Amino acid sequence: MSEKLSTQPYKGTRDFYPREMRMRNWFFGVIRHVLERSAFEEYNGPMLESLALYAAKSGEELANEQTYNFTDRGDRRMAIRPEMTPTVARMVAGKMGELNFPLKWFSIPNMYRCERPQRGRLREFWQINVDIFGCDGFEADLEVISSAIALLRAFGADESMFTVRINNRRFFNDVIAAIAGTDPEGSRKVSKVIDRKGKIPREEYEKELRELGLSDGQIAKIDALYTMDVSDAIALCPDSVGAGELRQLFDALDRTGLRKYCVFDFGIIRGLDYYTGTVFEVFDNAPENNRAMFGGGRYDNLVGLFVKNAKVSGVGYGMGDVTLEHFLETHKLMPASFDESVKVLVTRFEDVPYDRYLALVDTLRDADITASVYLGTKKFGKQIDFAVKDGYSHVLIMGGDEAARGVVRVKDLNTREECETTPDGVIALLKDKQ
Amino acid sequence: MSEKLSTQPYKGTRDFYPREMRMRNWFFGVIRHVLERSAFEEYNGPMLESLALYAAKSGEELANEQTYNFTDRGDRRMAIRPEMTPTVARMVAGKMGELNFPLKWFSIPNMYRCERPQRGRLREFWQINVDIFGCDGFEADLEVISSAIALLRAFGADESMFTVRINNRRFFNDVIAAIAGTDPEGSRKVSKVIDRKGKIPREEYEKELRELGLSDGQIAKIDALYTMDVSDAIALCPDSVGAGELRQLFDALDRTGLRKYCVFDFGIIRGLDYYTGTVFEVFDNAPENNRAMFGGGRYDNLVGLFVKNAKVSGVGYGMGDVTLEHFLETHKLMPASFDESVKVLVTRFEDVPYDRYLALVDTLRDADITASVYLGTKKFGKQIDFAVKDGYSHVLIMGGDEAARGVVRVKDLNTREECETTPDGVIALLKDKQ
Repeated sequence: MSEKLSTQPYKGTRDFYPREMRMRNWFFGVIRHVLERSAFEEYNGPMLESLALYAAKSGEELANEQTYNFTDRGDRRMAIRPEMTPTVARMVAGKMGELNFPLKWFSIPNMYRCERPQRGRLREFWQINVDIFGCDGFEADLEVISSAIALLRAFGADESMFTVRINNRRFFNDVIAAIAGTDPEGSRKVSKVIDRKGKIPREEYEKELRELGLSDGQIAKIDALYTMDVSDAIALCPDSVGAGELRQLFDALDRTGLRKYCVFDFGIIRGLDYYTGTVFEVFDNAPENNRAMFGGGRYDNLVGLFVKNAKVSGVGYGMGDVTLEHFLETHKLMPASFDESVKVLVTRFEDVPYDRYLALVDTLRDADITASVYLGTKKFGKQIDFAVKDGYSHVLIMGGDEAARGVVRVKDLNTREECETTPDGVIALLKDKQ
Repeated sequence: MSEKLSTQPYKGTRDFYPREMRMRNWFFGVIRHVLERSAFEEYNGPMLESLALYAAKSGEELANEQTYNFTDRGDRRMAIRPEMTPTVARMVAGKMGELNFPLKWFSIPNMYRCERPQRGRLREFWQINVDIFGCDGFEADLEVISSAIALLRAFGADESMFTVRINNRRFFNDVIAAIAGTDPEGSRKVSKVIDRKGKIPREEYEKELRELGLSDGQIAKIDALYTMDVSDAIALCPDSVGAGELRQLFDALDRTGLRKYCVFDFGIIRGLDYYTGTVFEVFDNAPENNRAMFGGGRYDNLVGLFVKNAKVSGVGYGMGDVTLEHFLETHKLMPASFDESVKVLVTRFEDVPYDRYLALVDTLRDADITASVYLGTKKFGKQIDFAVKDGYSHVLIMGGDEAARGVVRVKDLNTREECETTPDGVIALLKDKQ
């Protein structure tokens, strides 16, 4: 091949060199730790799924358009997963009889979406998926929202940095019907217009509502909902099931100290076809980045796509890695360094048998200290340069003289301090700094 | 949709329910820990790469046949990665000037191969990739082989369970040339026959060698190589560069105590076109499963596919997760349980305010104890059943009476012992068992 291949990764995907990978491992480690402490259990599934899975959830056209898909040699239409929900629904449906409900599950899968890459939106990304299956009560909604808050707090974020905006789809339907005085079909049409409120000009919005029979007074009443607090909103249709759910959730948020992170926001709808109860979005409060980072809510019976007459309720959210990293950077919540506190390079001289160095490295590794001998035969100065550039914290020096006396010199690369000790002394010294 | 979707994962792929996922997290955790302690650094790259990458390494036909590939909307021929080497070569080539050689890198990517699934061979699998780039000496070969041994030992395997079979491709070429007395072109032809030794009938093997001019005596000399120890083999062409490399490596294995895991095996060739120096395969010693689990070796300049006149040597191996799990099962090296030692379910009664339970759970989580409140309102007995089935180690019980007195009862689900204490007492009690 005379034509050289490109060294660029595929558009919209990322290479994770060790520096970036350390950051990711830290990042996902924090997330795993928080979720595991809350007794969420991790699962995963295949990268490839039948395209029909996504078509059944989102429609043939969207599934086709949004996914990387192809026909396999057995003539099956396959897709690289663009989201995790259909996979987890399939898995829950597949073991309905064996699983111990309610399930508290999470996953951090990589996935692909076939779209034009832009800031914060890539073709390959990881998504933290958190769901509770099989608990209909507000307790699950609360646990899910509380886990989202716990995740952000674990990274050092506080209530000045993010806000959880909460609504309820049942309440939304009920209050629209109460204000507009329409039948279910009429309310659905009104809801469709309201769902597009932020996306169409104000004039068009009013015009469409008027065409559905709403008066200026009714439109003003709907407008007022967007700035109401939760108790005023509930007062508009206090007997609705959705209002009851909202009240229960906000009462619990009050009593558990989570209220300071949360507000009621009638503008949170998240599309009309999927969610059935609580819906929420987590917003970045930074003025330059004030937008929804991720969201979720309670959804109806996805398992029904697989098992006749089966019903398992779900509530959860999916949070993209790129968005979350961006949030952490914006609020300066990223640690300055991901280097290990103790990482030791054993430098090498050619007048000492190589196995002496290997034995020293083995002793360190057995003591659970990260260590390597310098691979190669470059000069001492070059070995030190290598150690500094690679984030090593210490070098061990054992020339012919030290080897003969059974000692080593330890050099701290940060303080530049040096001392001489025995191999056992090295372990004690370094364990202390780990 | 009246037609229900299948709940089966795609053929040759696996669902990881929480039980399997705990096993995998343990499994990859052990691997990460061993490699990180040896100062290998983790990296990762995209699941999708240009098909040309695999074609350049393995030929158009094999790349096409072996990968899931398709044309994207920008008319690029893309493949789901079937291996990691082309990606890592691309990444190294992409930052040649910045990287701090020698690199000690590892990765645990998921990948796909388009082949008929069979025992130990799946379409989706994970592969532990370990490589050292930019060190030409035997030190890197030794470090790579030593890391493979350290990985298996970390799982509890010893020299009775596996053997590292080692050869050297330069030595192979030299000794064949020495015995056959052929020119380079002739030796290459002889090597091609020898590479197929185990795959063709003995008669055909001999016939083909005779056609290339080898006598029965020469064929017998080649046969003898397969049972020789390393020093006898080296004695056949002591001045060859490959013999020198073999000697250096085996000397170091002797001096570092790794020799007991290793043997010289002239039968290890690993294809003719890729490897250039040390080659090795790790065999399972179990009689019912005596075969190569994984292998690797020193390879020439892959980076040259991307950068003109660049040369970065590499030595490494790739180990599949399915094979390694199978080895651990065969030798009974899998832990009996992956349950956490302390995992607490706070049971719930409706006469106690829910937030009292949530506060208790928060206290536990803040103390880094895995805890959840029971989500729902089922009877106490059902809550205990749930806890037992889900691998909880303890339940906390706080009925109206306990709540009024500010105490909780702790029940150990293994011993069935119960005691009453304060919330602080619970933490002390459980931290002790963690």
